[in-house]
Amino acid sequence: MKSQIADAFTDFFYEYETPRQVLVRNGKVGVVCRLIQLLVLAYIIGWVFIYERGYQSTDIAVSSVFTKMKGVGYTAGINRSEGVWDVAESVFPPQGDASFVVMTNYIITEGQKIGKCPELQGKHSCSSNSDCKGGTFKRMGDGQMTGVCVNATMTCEVLAWCPLEDDHDIPDPALLMSAENYTLFIKNSVTFPIFDVSRSNLVEGIDNNYIRKCLYEPNDAPLCPIFRLGDIVKLSGFNFETIARLGGAIGIVVDWTCNLDFDVKHCKPKYSFHGLYGNADETDKAKASVGYNFRYAKHFLEDKIQKRTLHKVFGIRLDVIVHSLARKFDIIPTLTAIGSGVGIFGVATVVCDLVLLYLVPKREFYHNMKFKQTDTFVPEPESEACSTETELPNQ
Amino acid sequence: MKSQIADAFTDFFYEYETPRQVLVRNGKVGVVCRLIQLLVLAYIIGWVFIYERGYQSTDIAVSSVFTKMKGVGYTAGINRSEGVWDVAESVFPPQGDASFVVMTNYIITEGQKIGKCPELQGKHSCSSNSDCKGGTFKRMGDGQMTGVCVNATMTCEVLAWCPLEDDHDIPDPALLMSAENYTLFIKNSVTFPIFDVSRSNLVEGIDNNYIRKCLYEPNDAPLCPIFRLGDIVKLSGFNFETIARLGGAIGIVVDWTCNLDFDVKHCKPKYSFHGLYGNADETDKAKASVGYNFRYAKHFLEDKIQKRTLHKVFGIRLDVIVHSLARKFDIIPTLTAIGSGVGIFGVATVVCDLVLLYLVPKREFYHNMKFKQTDTFVPEPESEACSTETELPNQ
Amino acid sequence: MKSQIADAFTDFFYEYETPRQVLVRNGKVGVVCRLIQLLVLAYIIGWVFIYERGYQSTDIAVSSVFTKMKGVGYTAGINRSEGVWDVAESVFPPQGDASFVVMTNYIITEGQKIGKCPELQGKHSCSSNSDCKGGTFKRMGDGQMTGVCVNATMTCEVLAWCPLEDDHDIPDPALLMSAENYTLFIKNSVTFPIFDVSRSNLVEGIDNNYIRKCLYEPNDAPLCPIFRLGDIVKLSGFNFETIARLGGAIGIVVDWTCNLDFDVKHCKPKYSFHGLYGNADETDKAKASVGYNFRYAKHFLEDKIQKRTLHKVFGIRLDVIVHSLARKFDIIPTLTAIGSGVGIFGVATVVCDLVLLYLVPKREFYHNMKFKQTDTFVPEPESEACSTETELPNQ
Repeated sequence: MKSQIADAFTDFFYEYETPRQVLVRNGKVGVVCRLIQLLVLAYIIGWVFIYERGYQSTDIAVSSVFTKMKGVGYTAGINRSEGVWDVAESVFPPQGDASFVVMTNYIITEGQKIGKCPELQGKHSCSSNSDCKGGTFKRMGDGQMTGVCVNATMTCEVLAWCPLEDDHDIPDPALLMSAENYTLFIKNSVTFPIFDVSRSNLVEGIDNNYIRKCLYEPNDAPLCPIFRLGDIVKLSGFNFETIARLGGAIGIVVDWTCNLDFDVKHCKPKYSFHGLYGNADETDKAKASVGYNFRYAKHFLEDKIQKRTLHKVFGIRLDVIVHSLARKFDIIPTLTAIGSGVGIFGVATVVCDLVLLYLVPKREFYHNMKFKQTDTFVPEPESEACSTETELPNQ
Repeated sequence: MKSQIADAFTDFFYEYETPRQVLVRNGKVGVVCRLIQLLVLAYIIGWVFIYERGYQSTDIAVSSVFTKMKGVGYTAGINRSEGVWDVAESVFPPQGDASFVVMTNYIITEGQKIGKCPELQGKHSCSSNSDCKGGTFKRMGDGQMTGVCVNATMTCEVLAWCPLEDDHDIPDPALLMSAENYTLFIKNSVTFPIFDVSRSNLVEGIDNNYIRKCLYEPNDAPLCPIFRLGDIVKLSGFNFETIARLGGAIGIVVDWTCNLDFDVKHCKPKYSFHGLYGNADETDKAKASVGYNFRYAKHFLEDKIQKRTLHKVFGIRLDVIVHSLARKFDIIPTLTAIGSGVGIFGVATVVCDLVLLYLVPKREFYHNMKFKQTDTFVPEPESEACSTETELPNQ
Repeated sequence: MKSQIADAFTDFFYEYETPRQVLVRNGKVGVVCRLIQLLVLAYIIGWVFIYERGYQSTDIAVSSVFTKMKGVGYTAGINRSEGVWDVAESVFPPQGDASFVVMTNYIITEGQKIGKCPELQGKHSCSSNSDCKGGTFKRMGDGQMTGVCVNATMTCEVLAWCPLEDDHDIPDPALLMSAENYTLFIKNSVTFPIFDVSRSNLVEGIDNNYIRKCLYEPNDAPLCPIFRLGDIVKLSGFNFETIARLGGAIGIVVDWTCNLDFDVKHCKPKYSFHGLYGNADETDKAKASVGYNFRYAKHFLEDKIQKRTLHKVFGIRLDVIVHSLARKFDIIPTLTAIGSGVGIFGVATVVCDLVLLYLVPKREFYHNMKFKQTDTFVPEPESEACSTETELPNQ
């Protein structure tokens, strides 16, 4: 018993199978097949390995973004109250998120208090009280209807913060054109969890001294993390005057495409800018819903009465979008690529065989070379045992 | 020398190897093997290629979301002060983020100022001053303890914004049930960086005119980007009255599953809604921590004293979640799939060979057909040279 | 005709090809080849299947995070006004986002109003009015220059919110050291869309009773979703006193690495903490831009004049980062792995053949065993037909 296992073991390790092959010496078939095989080899090496880097595994980063605007604007108090708009007044939210809005234009409605007033003319017109069902709301209305149709304006009276905001005339040019000179500082750190690599956009060489003076330039200072708002708008293809007046949304893409087979210090961010919700070059009129605005209110108490100042803010929304892809050599994708490449080689052989067996004039000859038929008749065991020997040098 | 290289070159291109094969004519084995091979083929074509689209590469989008609520609510001033709640008052944050809260219920504590007052009854009870160590804080306490146990309430006195908020009774029904009719406008753009395709949820046909009137309906208006809050709650399986009173969180999933082998205009968003942190159909009591609320304060100066109005806001938190997956034909996954399919074919052959060599009665015969033994004896070189010829037509 | 198809059909199903192979009985080659093959097998089974779980497909979750801070701080009113800092005052934004800031230190500038005042000393020095061009802004300036150089300070006069903030001296120690005892409650739900599995970090056994009392401890209470701010800072490697004074950013990673082949209840979150923008152990001086701060303003009306209190907030920014990866058995990657494994087996065979045909002394013998040459001469059809038979038992 024990020796049987030992025998099987010996057999297993001393014996080795290799497929028998026909060496077909035929110019046409040979050239065709070799070309097919070279093509497959070129594809596997050139495309999968070199171009697509099939020998590397990939990882997407976990990232964190912190932004800080600097700048101050001034609006003279001719028609409206004088204003000094520093960052605490014009960036929403203030705490430095990856997505925020910089105010560039606004409509202020001062001293609103809760009361009854008619809707603005042109909106929710009515001809009699029956058009304004009391206690209900209209979809675009500003408050609960009281049931009264006001004669002077021919609009429904509503319970609302009065006087109502009139946002029909948007200031032109934008009130805070000086926002063009605001600067944005982006701090971004990325961590590739699989490769255990952490990077910050303050890469080697970007120190405090450099940051204090630098300004991002696509060619001259591509790694400076300080951006002028006007540059961002221009690089994304928008016109600052237009976007400042009505608002808009711009994505700042921080692209971390890193090949970690090289030193980690070559893993640097690339910044790019593009308009969100349709690019600047599309015709504005064709687009549904242009601009970017929102409202917020500042509350105060005047003569013991709760009042508010309503701000309709037009601004540039900036989304810092981190796009990351790290690559590093990994044995699994390498062997998977090789393995599947060998499989494709097998396909090449199948194609060649089809050519050989069906398209070549001497196909029957090659068929017989390649295939050995076992026919239905059963040879006697003795001669069978012989057969293996007879394929050795002929007796 | 030169001719040797030329010879090798000619040899390489004129010679071509193809494996020699045995054609086994055996009904049982044949049927079994062909079925296995057909199965593998069906799997590769049917499953990998057609069902899982193995010939396509995939990409996940970089996306940007902007939201805008519209609506106004009114609360009469019987027990509490009269309120008109437009979007500037009831959406947090105001600037249109992808994740925001719509207030539906609230508890207001007016006129708080910094001072000393006892904790509410039922919380942090004490029997003597020694239970309230001065200068320290309790985990759920409202302020720094002064070291005094107030007899009237039998609770510790704290340095806090007084009077303390009493949030024991949550208004029922919710004060802003009218929020059900608020509408939400979602603007979402996605960019698939690998395929260089950008799409907006304002797809072809969704223009300004349509948006002004439409309202999302799963069947009738599946592409309208305007949603009624009540519909969102209903479609996510919640009851509006319950969620409005205690608050809750709902995810609005914008699903961009696109097959970019077709025209890009077929790449349209699908909206779906589901409760976050446990679905509506689970029993509420089993769940730890239901509802959604937070506090914020409005500050004002009254008689030169800094005061604040504390708002405990119960609301519906809406998270717009973009889920994207684009697919497009790519040569790499196609050939990888084919290559690994050929590999699986190889497995099929191995399985068939096992059947042939171990399970069939005539297995020894087939073994001899398939294998040629090279035994330990070494044939003489002359006969060896012959042997290749002897396999050609017998002399 | 019909019978021809039937014949072809029968042929197809009754015939089956299997490659002919040479059984090489050679100790050296056998051992080498078997070892190579075993290595490949070990790699495929051990590495691809067991270690990298190549039989599973993966999915990344769609997740939703809600946070809630609890705690209150007190600052005595010696140099500055007395303060009680509860969550409504010291968490930005208030509505429980995944990314927020907890105030730990601050500089308050009270009673600012719009007016003219000189820049602080040391910034934007001037020697005469010509250094301060009226109507323009300086990059780090606080307002629009009036064109006047103020003699007293030798700095430019600006139109700004006056008095200007002096943030030169940052309070040391931080004013809100008590923030160390604040607690953070994290509610996180994840959904794996491909596997249709939803999980919440309030897993089995984490009920209301447990939450009310528990506090996260890496070893004793790794699933408790309540975190002490001091613990978070300590676990991320920072010193609370330093980070509280200047601010900093900490990532709270919720790691959902789940093997869904097991019961879903084993899919539990793991919490980890690390500093963003450089870790705590790096030397602070080498780093560009340390700390975390932002400004916000509270507006009020005093004697009919719009005034504001400017807060420069130093705080700990907490980013809750959800990192998810679920794995589940899937037939496609399994068969792809097997298929490409078979391909790699093919490579092993090629390597063995190279050894056999080029490195072994008896290589010519093996070459003749393996290959059958078809030379340029064309055998006559008759003998050709014979040849196939002659390979059967010798006549």
